[in-house]
Amino acid sequence: MPGQYKLTYFPVRGLGEQIRLLLNDQGIPFEDFQFDRNDWPKIKPTMQFGQTPCLNDGDTQIVQSGAIMRHLARKHNLYGENDCERTYLDMFYEGIKDLHSKYVQLIYVEYEEKKDDFVKNTLPEELAKFEKLLKSKKDGKGFILGDKISFVDYTLFEELDIVQLLDANCLNAFPALKAYHERMHSRSSLQDYLKHREQAKLPVNGNGKQ
Amino acid sequence: MPGQYKLTYFPVRGLGEQIRLLLNDQGIPFEDFQFDRNDWPKIKPTMQFGQTPCLNDGDTQIVQSGAIMRHLARKHNLYGENDCERTYLDMFYEGIKDLHSKYVQLIYVEYEEKKDDFVKNTLPEELAKFEKLLKSKKDGKGFILGDKISFVDYTLFEELDIVQLLDANCLNAFPALKAYHERMHSRSSLQDYLKHREQAKLPVNGNGKQ
Ligand SMILES: N[C@@H](CCC(=O)N[C@@H](CS)C(=O)NCC(=O)O)C(=O)O
Ligand SMILES: N[C@@H](CCC(=O)N[C@@H](CS)C(=O)NCC(=O)O)C(=O)O
Repeated sequence: MPGQYKLTYFPVRGLGEQIRLLLNDQGIPFEDFQFDRNDWPKIKPTMQFGQTPCLNDGDTQIVQSGAIMRHLARKHNLYGENDCERTYLDMFYEGIKDLHSKYVQLIYVEYEEKKDDFVKNTLPEELAKFEKLLKSKKDGKGFILGDKISFVDYTLFEELDIVQLLDANCLNAFPALKAYHERMHSRSSLQDYLKHREQAKLPVNGNGKQ
Repeated sequence: MPGQYKLTYFPVRGLGEQIRLLLNDQGIPFEDFQFDRNDWPKIKPTMQFGQTPCLNDGDTQIVQSGAIMRHLARKHNLYGENDCERTYLDMFYEGIKDLHSKYVQLIYVEYEEKKDDFVKNTLPEELAKFEKLLKSKKDGKGFILGDKISFVDYTLFEELDIVQLLDANCLNAFPALKAYHERMHSRSSLQDYLKHREQAKLPVNGNGKQ
């Protein structure tokens, strides 16, 4: 039973994976429509900004990953308990997006020339900021907000997951992030999906680099 | 009387201007602290992600322009009337950010080589999407949401303002956007600030290009 939601995206993890993780972990039924790349020219003009991911919630078509994540967060109580927490989550989310922009630039534009520099310099500099922020609540032993999971936890988990594909050891210098990643990775509510994803060999990025 | 808010940013429009426009237009008192570039090395380490804009709301230090805009929107009733409107605003805001990323890439990385191409190809393609979205409510004759102003109106107004510095005629093919920009520009609640900004000769970007 797909329910009211349909996610439309390329057959990759990319910007869609945080959404898939949220929906699977929360046990929210949805159709995970991964279109064939050959069909993209037909789909593109139907999207408000000519891009996906796109979430259909009943009759409403929502694009922009940040808007989709916040939409789900509002509907499923994953956006903190008050405005102060919501602002903190927005800030954290945008911080991850800044790191992700650098990651995307590396993957799609300058992988060969810049990978070493990214792993050696950019990544530790960026991760240090998240280590510090994470430790500011519950000494880093809980979720981003401390006690309660939020939409940004799925974004952070995914980001930590993919940067480790660039360098399996990159979290070693950041014990709070490393333990956080392990905790998220072993959530029982995620095991079926993570197994399914592995079997499906879903690529991380559209150009096969990771 | 500066009130509870203090905005800290470079002495440019950049990512801070949408915030200044919102606060001024809404008549919300704030301290507009534009630091001296020489002081940046001292300020940088105090910022969660090593960057500004930063808004202090009482004791809370908020960074990330998208988080600051949403924070103000929640507090001052500029985030629509319901979740459906909030999602629409998030989507619109993220769409503008995508255009702005391309703009920033042009300004800071490839101005000389790419300006013509940006004006001729990228800009009209991008503006067409916003023209269509704007016209989807009140036939484009109101605000982004139709009847009521929202935080994203300040972001869109600023974006339309700065792309016209690249090409004064770029809105001619988009009548709804052009009329929208004129309406925003002539809001009586903005006149004092716009005059002040002109007199202060506040640069658009950090490298003097526009
Ligand atoms: N800001 C958008 C970016 C969306 C985006 O870049 N989508 C890419 C795939 S990851 C896309 O649709 N590319 C195909 C195209 O532009 O034709 C978001 O966060 O959703
Ligand atoms: N995603 C951030 C980006 C902030 C940003 O890029 N800030 C620049 C100025 S526009 C900055 O502080 N640069 C100085 C530096 O990185 O040292 C936001 O939206 O606020």
